[in-house]
Amino acid sequence: MFASRLNEAILAKKSPLVVGLDPDITKFPSCLKPAATASAAEIANAILTFNKNIIDSVADLAAAVKPQAAFYEQYGWAGMKALEETAIYARSQGLLVILDAKRGDVPNTALAYARAYLDKDTNRHAFPCDALTVNPFLGRDGLEHFVQAAASNQRGIFLLVRTSNPGAADLQNLTVKETERPIWQEVAAWVADWSEKTRGSEEYSPVGIVAGLTYPHEAQTLRRLLPHSYLLLPGLGVQGGRIADALPCFDKNGLGAVLVAARSIIYAFSREPYKNRFSSDQFAAASRKATQNILDNLGASGYPLR
Amino acid sequence: MFASRLNEAILAKKSPLVVGLDPDITKFPSCLKPAATASAAEIANAILTFNKNIIDSVADLAAAVKPQAAFYEQYGWAGMKALEETAIYARSQGLLVILDAKRGDVPNTALAYARAYLDKDTNRHAFPCDALTVNPFLGRDGLEHFVQAAASNQRGIFLLVRTSNPGAADLQNLTVKETERPIWQEVAAWVADWSEKTRGSEEYSPVGIVAGLTYPHEAQTLRRLLPHSYLLLPGLGVQGGRIADALPCFDKNGLGAVLVAARSIIYAFSREPYKNRFSSDQFAAASRKATQNILDNLGASGYPLR
Repeated sequence: MFASRLNEAILAKKSPLVVGLDPDITKFPSCLKPAATASAAEIANAILTFNKNIIDSVADLAAAVKPQAAFYEQYGWAGMKALEETAIYARSQGLLVILDAKRGDVPNTALAYARAYLDKDTNRHAFPCDALTVNPFLGRDGLEHFVQAAASNQRGIFLLVRTSNPGAADLQNLTVKETERPIWQEVAAWVADWSEKTRGSEEYSPVGIVAGLTYPHEAQTLRRLLPHSYLLLPGLGVQGGRIADALPCFDKNGLGAVLVAARSIIYAFSREPYKNRFSSDQFAAASRKATQNILDNLGASGYPLR
Repeated sequence: MFASRLNEAILAKKSPLVVGLDPDITKFPSCLKPAATASAAEIANAILTFNKNIIDSVADLAAAVKPQAAFYEQYGWAGMKALEETAIYARSQGLLVILDAKRGDVPNTALAYARAYLDKDTNRHAFPCDALTVNPFLGRDGLEHFVQAAASNQRGIFLLVRTSNPGAADLQNLTVKETERPIWQEVAAWVADWSEKTRGSEEYSPVGIVAGLTYPHEAQTLRRLLPHSYLLLPGLGVQGGRIADALPCFDKNGLGAVLVAARSIIYAFSREPYKNRFSSDQFAAASRKATQNILDNLGASGYPLR
């Protein structure tokens, strides 16, 4: 089961961190920044080199990496190739791969997405990832294919329930007349149902959720409503989320939630307080130091595994 | 403006049809079916050959093609390469390309998706398409990047408002307490606002919507609520949508809506009433005949351009 593998990774690394691999070449260290005239293939190569350096520097400090598909898709098929190679490399270094692609569609098409990202290891064409983020707008019938593929193939999904952006409230916080609940709680109720159906005798099901750390009250409510779902918590650092707000989302063993940091780790070399202590060439070392600092903060705040 | 280009394509072809390119190799004609051991690259080649044959057979009868991203993503980067090459070929044959990828994310990431699919022609890395389907679950802040890119770069978007699948009602039909309106009408109100801001002196804005033909009452309500948005109408044929229900969605000039047919056209050779009249090798001719029949039905039902 995916959740058992995630548990094991967190316990082995003593870390619930997920490093977001959102490559933005305009923020790359000068040694890797592609020329303005670079081809998509050249840019894709620079992205892969950047990612491998980050992976090497954080592999023992993080449970998983989370590549954000958009940042690869913007370089077409060459970018997607870099994404595949990044995922293969991350897994070879003992990291789980959570692909943040927020897919969702009608049933016939959702099945094709599930085959693309959540299929058995014997499907040589499937993308090499362990879990996928999915979007609930189209309703339960398409999502069933993702749930089923995850449960059958040792994969996981994280359904968007309450996202980390300021505009999330536009739709997710609307109150449903019949139930007096916000939309995000309606979606959470679907997850509760799927979790019960898929978790067997495990504590956590393969059906997790995305709950923005920027809305700690909602994230903590979701923790209570969904005791058997992993929470993927984005929004730490640049977006304003705080470690103290994440703590109530973990269980007493330090499991049940994962904390995402992206820009604050991968571009640490260009940010305070690291930019004067590391040169641009030392971007990987700066990322490692930023990761260790987050883990130290977790420990100081009472996270049980540190 | 994208809508003007879509108007021109419909008027030139006298057709509001969009052919869905959803390649499923298990349904391919035997002459193109890849072996069980085929590599992703071999499958991608078969997909491209299939698509080129379909494009050649319908180019003068359809305004656009709509590749469904999932069916390409399931073959990894090789599949994405086939998608890019399909789009380039379709455009070279005078068809607009509407990429059905249903993207949506937080603002920073939505911007990367907009760059991937809706950027200027001068961005050599952007995917060669004319419009993109997008998902509203994350709210307006991410969507603003898609709206802006579409308006600035002569591209279009089609926002999911009421999708064609049976499960669509799970979320989209929930009634919002404060306004007594269903969710799909809340999303439609965002579109009304963006349409006014982006259409200039044009009749139709670059901000269109997806409205499933399988829910004709909702589609026709959306037609009235959004007089300046193009409606992308999926669900004809296999999903149960009917031509008679599409007719009220067009304006008096036959513009303002496009009608999607996918499986009923591209796999016509294996379906009634074509399967006894065309051999598997004649799949492209069967697709042409199926397309002509839909256009004849449109004409017989009173569609003004036929």
